[in-house]
Amino acid sequence: VIELLLVGFGHVTRRFVRLLDERGDRLAGEHGLDTRIVGIATGRHGAAYDPKGIDIATALQRVEGGQPLSPLDASDTPPTDGLDLIARASERPGAARVVIEATPLNIVDARPAVDHVRLALLSRMHVVSANKGPVAHAHADLSVLAHKMGVRYLFEGAVMDGIPIFNLVRETMPACEVVGFRGVINSTTNYILTMMEDGGEFADALAAMQEQGIAERDASLDVDGWDAAAKAAALANVLLDARLTPQAIERTGIGQLTGDAVRQAAGRGSRIRLVASARRGRDGVRARVAPEELAPDDPLGLLRGMSNALYLETDLLGRVGITQLDGGLTQTAYALLSDLVTVHRGLQAPREGRPDRSP
Amino acid sequence: VIELLLVGFGHVTRRFVRLLDERGDRLAGEHGLDTRIVGIATGRHGAAYDPKGIDIATALQRVEGGQPLSPLDASDTPPTDGLDLIARASERPGAARVVIEATPLNIVDARPAVDHVRLALLSRMHVVSANKGPVAHAHADLSVLAHKMGVRYLFEGAVMDGIPIFNLVRETMPACEVVGFRGVINSTTNYILTMMEDGGEFADALAAMQEQGIAERDASLDVDGWDAAAKAAALANVLLDARLTPQAIERTGIGQLTGDAVRQAAGRGSRIRLVASARRGRDGVRARVAPEELAPDDPLGLLRGMSNALYLETDLLGRVGITQLDGGLTQTAYALLSDLVTVHRGLQAPREGRPDRSP
Repeated sequence: VIELLLVGFGHVTRRFVRLLDERGDRLAGEHGLDTRIVGIATGRHGAAYDPKGIDIATALQRVEGGQPLSPLDASDTPPTDGLDLIARASERPGAARVVIEATPLNIVDARPAVDHVRLALLSRMHVVSANKGPVAHAHADLSVLAHKMGVRYLFEGAVMDGIPIFNLVRETMPACEVVGFRGVINSTTNYILTMMEDGGEFADALAAMQEQGIAERDASLDVDGWDAAAKAAALANVLLDARLTPQAIERTGIGQLTGDAVRQAAGRGSRIRLVASARRGRDGVRARVAPEELAPDDPLGLLRGMSNALYLETDLLGRVGITQLDGGLTQTAYALLSDLVTVHRGLQAPREGRPDRSP
Repeated sequence: VIELLLVGFGHVTRRFVRLLDERGDRLAGEHGLDTRIVGIATGRHGAAYDPKGIDIATALQRVEGGQPLSPLDASDTPPTDGLDLIARASERPGAARVVIEATPLNIVDARPAVDHVRLALLSRMHVVSANKGPVAHAHADLSVLAHKMGVRYLFEGAVMDGIPIFNLVRETMPACEVVGFRGVINSTTNYILTMMEDGGEFADALAAMQEQGIAERDASLDVDGWDAAAKAAALANVLLDARLTPQAIERTGIGQLTGDAVRQAAGRGSRIRLVASARRGRDGVRARVAPEELAPDDPLGLLRGMSNALYLETDLLGRVGITQLDGGLTQTAYALLSDLVTVHRGLQAPREGRPDRSP
């Protein structure tokens, strides 16, 4: 049995635990995966730890009803936060543990997410995360730490919801070098640009999305390109072995675009999209996020609404693209699930490390 | 050391052994993979078996110079063909063995490729193949046999050259169900249709491709849709657990299309492409291959020349597309290499089987 600690219990994590339940039979039958949720830490509903297992239906009900989780704690003193939860669990010897880190993005320095990941790894717990912050700010450190402690740090959901990017390269493209990438990886801006193509100005499109709850009240993270920059940094750090942060990405948002400009491009058969790209050059990796006018035959130009796509440039396979036509909550939650299965596969039978060259 | 038996030594296999050499350091360093080629069987240049290892540079030189391989055989009586080679090797106990099966496609019944695969699996050898025939005709049988014998049967190169489809689903989409697919998976017809869009008739386009050596003299396999049907059957058998053969696919080729029809569609902003699709329904899996007029916003319509793409319809991830913009020989050869690494990973540390549901 794998023990799960949920650090962050928002929409994504709650959808994840429901998926885990819905697919429980299949996960047990096909993969022999059996899990027990032993801890939950939330931002506004407290935390609980119970090594015998927390009743997840009750936990969901309490949080969604606005009640604290503390009554579910096995002791009189529930953990104060995510770090405390991880520390509590680490005091007990025992089963394999996976921390599911899905706290909100802090674009500035990725705290406290990066602290959660670091403490978990130091405590020899595996980490599965949908948080792009730590990957964008500290991937090199964290991956070295994970390797040293003999545990996994996986984060498929950080960039393109559930469709595989990191797993794709790691599991299916051995001995093939990624030298660059180019993609549309922010849904909110894509939605806004699509709405501008169909008529309307930036402000109206944004307001409509906020009304529908698709965009945040503070939309600057999306429209100023910060979200795309964090994803570009994460991709560059992992796939191109870069040492970038979101702040190091050359970044232009879509706030300056007028509806006229967007529609004039569409009139020429072109499309304006917020494109994230990076390439390894002689003087390191250069990455940028900016609106680009895409030629009619550019596949990125066809992406509308919640669709995302990333084209990898590789040495042996040329350009390989992966496209997600239906992004959303279930997809991101699925990323956590697929990473959990990867951790489990490794526990069943540790994969090759990176041994010194054999004679 | 993994012993390799090369059954079929055409362009793809020869590119594969060169890749293996070029990436040898990286494969050894990162994956601990070490190989020795102990046998080669060709269609027109005889065969050779030498358990101590065959000098591959000499073998390449002989075959490319039109000379037989028999002098490289360790005995006085070289194997007569691929089956004989596998039988010889199976008489010696010893190392892990992988048969690299890449003989030409026989669309009718996939022989002798399917016999090569079966004998290899029965001899407890792993099989890595770029041949779509056995997957299209006998996947269910062969996969059961491989499982029973405790070996792997992998065939990433069978459908979309080197870009991962089968590995993508198997390694990165656990507990996610594929319910259908739709794609452009035959390069020759795509090339012809692209040339017709740019002016010219079917016959001229085909003749030009044959002159350049891109299309075979007998192009019926491509233009009548047989190649796409074999690939569609392979995809349906593996991803949708179907029991189809190429003959069971509803099939229309592109031979009846006029240049005018293709260009009129292009004038409307649409594109005509040979589309392969399948879907699981109540009464089993239905698959078809036919030219379709694609709407301007259909990503399959943008594919030109050697580009291929496949969109999977899944239950948890919605529609996921993978696109290969640069198909070719190196890509197919790479598929053999990536499958070989997968076999090796499994040998290092056997992965989970499919145990009975755990309590």
